[in-house]
Amino acid sequence: MRDVVIVGAAETRFGKSELAYRDLAAQAGRHAMDDAGIDSDEIEAFFLGTFSPGTFIHQEHAAPLIAHELGLAHVPSTRTENACASGSTAFLSAIYAIAAGAHDVVLVVGAEKMTATPVAETTSILAEAADWENESKVGLTFPGAYALIARAYMHKYGKTRDILDAVAIKNHRNAMGNPYAQFHKLIGPEDIARSAMVADPLTLYDCSPISDGAAAVVVVAADVAERFKRPGVRVLGFGQASDSLALYKHDELTTLPAARRAGERAYRMAGLAPEDVDLAEVHDCFTIAEIVATEDLGFFGPGEGGDAVKAGVTGRDGRIPVNPSGGLKAKGHPVGATGVSQLVEAAFQLRGEAGERQVDGAEIALTHNVGGSGATCVVTILGRPA
Amino acid sequence: MRDVVIVGAAETRFGKSELAYRDLAAQAGRHAMDDAGIDSDEIEAFFLGTFSPGTFIHQEHAAPLIAHELGLAHVPSTRTENACASGSTAFLSAIYAIAAGAHDVVLVVGAEKMTATPVAETTSILAEAADWENESKVGLTFPGAYALIARAYMHKYGKTRDILDAVAIKNHRNAMGNPYAQFHKLIGPEDIARSAMVADPLTLYDCSPISDGAAAVVVVAADVAERFKRPGVRVLGFGQASDSLALYKHDELTTLPAARRAGERAYRMAGLAPEDVDLAEVHDCFTIAEIVATEDLGFFGPGEGGDAVKAGVTGRDGRIPVNPSGGLKAKGHPVGATGVSQLVEAAFQLRGEAGERQVDGAEIALTHNVGGSGATCVVTILGRPA
Repeated sequence: MRDVVIVGAAETRFGKSELAYRDLAAQAGRHAMDDAGIDSDEIEAFFLGTFSPGTFIHQEHAAPLIAHELGLAHVPSTRTENACASGSTAFLSAIYAIAAGAHDVVLVVGAEKMTATPVAETTSILAEAADWENESKVGLTFPGAYALIARAYMHKYGKTRDILDAVAIKNHRNAMGNPYAQFHKLIGPEDIARSAMVADPLTLYDCSPISDGAAAVVVVAADVAERFKRPGVRVLGFGQASDSLALYKHDELTTLPAARRAGERAYRMAGLAPEDVDLAEVHDCFTIAEIVATEDLGFFGPGEGGDAVKAGVTGRDGRIPVNPSGGLKAKGHPVGATGVSQLVEAAFQLRGEAGERQVDGAEIALTHNVGGSGATCVVTILGRPA
Repeated sequence: MRDVVIVGAAETRFGKSELAYRDLAAQAGRHAMDDAGIDSDEIEAFFLGTFSPGTFIHQEHAAPLIAHELGLAHVPSTRTENACASGSTAFLSAIYAIAAGAHDVVLVVGAEKMTATPVAETTSILAEAADWENESKVGLTFPGAYALIARAYMHKYGKTRDILDAVAIKNHRNAMGNPYAQFHKLIGPEDIARSAMVADPLTLYDCSPISDGAAAVVVVAADVAERFKRPGVRVLGFGQASDSLALYKHDELTTLPAARRAGERAYRMAGLAPEDVDLAEVHDCFTIAEIVATEDLGFFGPGEGGDAVKAGVTGRDGRIPVNPSGGLKAKGHPVGATGVSQLVEAAFQLRGEAGERQVDGAEIALTHNVGGSGATCVVTILGRPA
């Protein structure tokens, strides 16, 4: 397959924004083009990852809308939607279009505007990413689904909720060094103990927040990368897999088979193994999800991911730093933006431009993006510019 | 680019269906696999074109849902959304994935379930495909937008509404021969004269209906096509272009620049010209849209498309048959299904299996699929199996 690199990366600050959806998305896109040192007339195609702008802000058909805001004139503009993995599937679409030889220079934006919607509606909208007829309609929300996963994990492996605390505390600490993060607030076990219960055992600090935000990357064929001012972050491998939307059809709750498959495909394509990865941005929509992710990706054995966080193995200076950006938990989780934001963080890290949160000597970064409770999983492996 | 062919095609009957969204989509997918003579375990990737299942039926993230219903196990499953062109962008995504060398055998389904929603809400949901903030919110619905286009056309070229009548009458007549069509009802000018005004000058018979339905194609690399029982319908060319969502930003109303661009790209890729096309399935969401489409595609000069319909040039036995399936007007318009359904009809025609509505000697078929009032346009050109 034709090699692809990332030559531009940018994101907005996540959180509650005064900007409208289209302005957020355009801001990220424009800054990514600036980062690449190109004008909009050099972009040949546009892919937008966004989850549910129809229900959040009455705006479907958002790809040509954002393309027009960005001055992309008449380039092919396509939205992909795979719930919280929408940003990653937009990125894979760009890779395919380039590898097919249809385009050389493609812009990918991920965006979501969530805070303009009443919070009570937001939980319901998010539940449309699960099997509505069989689960959401009867009350299984995402906090509920991941609470079941947390309970199953703790029961199966004999763990207590201090492993969840460790994830939240680490990711809030990491976000302190991320100017784009929604939260800049250190927390400790006592804050978590005092916080509101959302879905037992998950408290407020176990849940990623409701966020506005956008992220963008400029993706180009490696064979044309020399003409851009930025060194190209290499796409070494990727994998996508799917699974049942309904949690009740999963054989077990303590692993996401689609994440395992997506990871295996990405490792195989890259010719790499888990121990080669220098840092990972994983989909910690809830604290338990990060623990499960690190096991699905092969960083730790089953039941060992929680203890690894407690032992500091996934800290920024640990053996395998996980979510140096702060993760969904503390950086924020504007649904459609998240997958692209993970790529942006990976690009910053691999270019050595992650500032306070830089992982020393980062050569290989992995991103792990999940839609639903494991129905869509995308894993990518990126390499430092050659 | 690696050549791609269609080896399986199927659709459900369009109209009000008792089937749920997932069952409609799965039925089309299953029948397309049957048509290709393959089992679900031979499918390597899945793309779903669907517009707004979140607002229509509370179900986003529909790609893995349908994949699971179809027994596609864990293959990468991605939804694309480009309003009424969602089906076509799913098809182009499949082409890119194959041309990139990532997959050889891909299933594409387009689907929409619209009749489970109260009609008053449906118009509002459809308006989310336009620029909500600047036009839809203040009352410009799609019938309203196309009424403006019709008025502008009639004024500019000095035409009367008999050209619109001619489109509706032809497409209802064509649909009589299509077992999948929503309407099997001949109409005449007197029916149209008696029908309700929707948005002056567009009456009920100028508007495509609200429909449930699904369509599917099995798309494979030409270099593996020999192993399938069906001869491969060749994808000779395609083009996609975009434009402003807001109609007020268009320089003129009587042409869709994105359709012209998409058509030019498709013709250039195929090495063909408008006069080489034996039949076209075009996006007649409203009668005026078919007339504009035939001009944008170069079949007729500006202002000549309406008279051509009246003269029978676009009839099934005319020089360039347009919408032999009955088109969106009479076959129905389940939004996400439409683009794929156009490909299905083209495949039936090019295989010589279109029954009563067969266009004699069809060698080259063109499809023209529009999202919004021209914000996304996709044109494909298909050739008879070699």
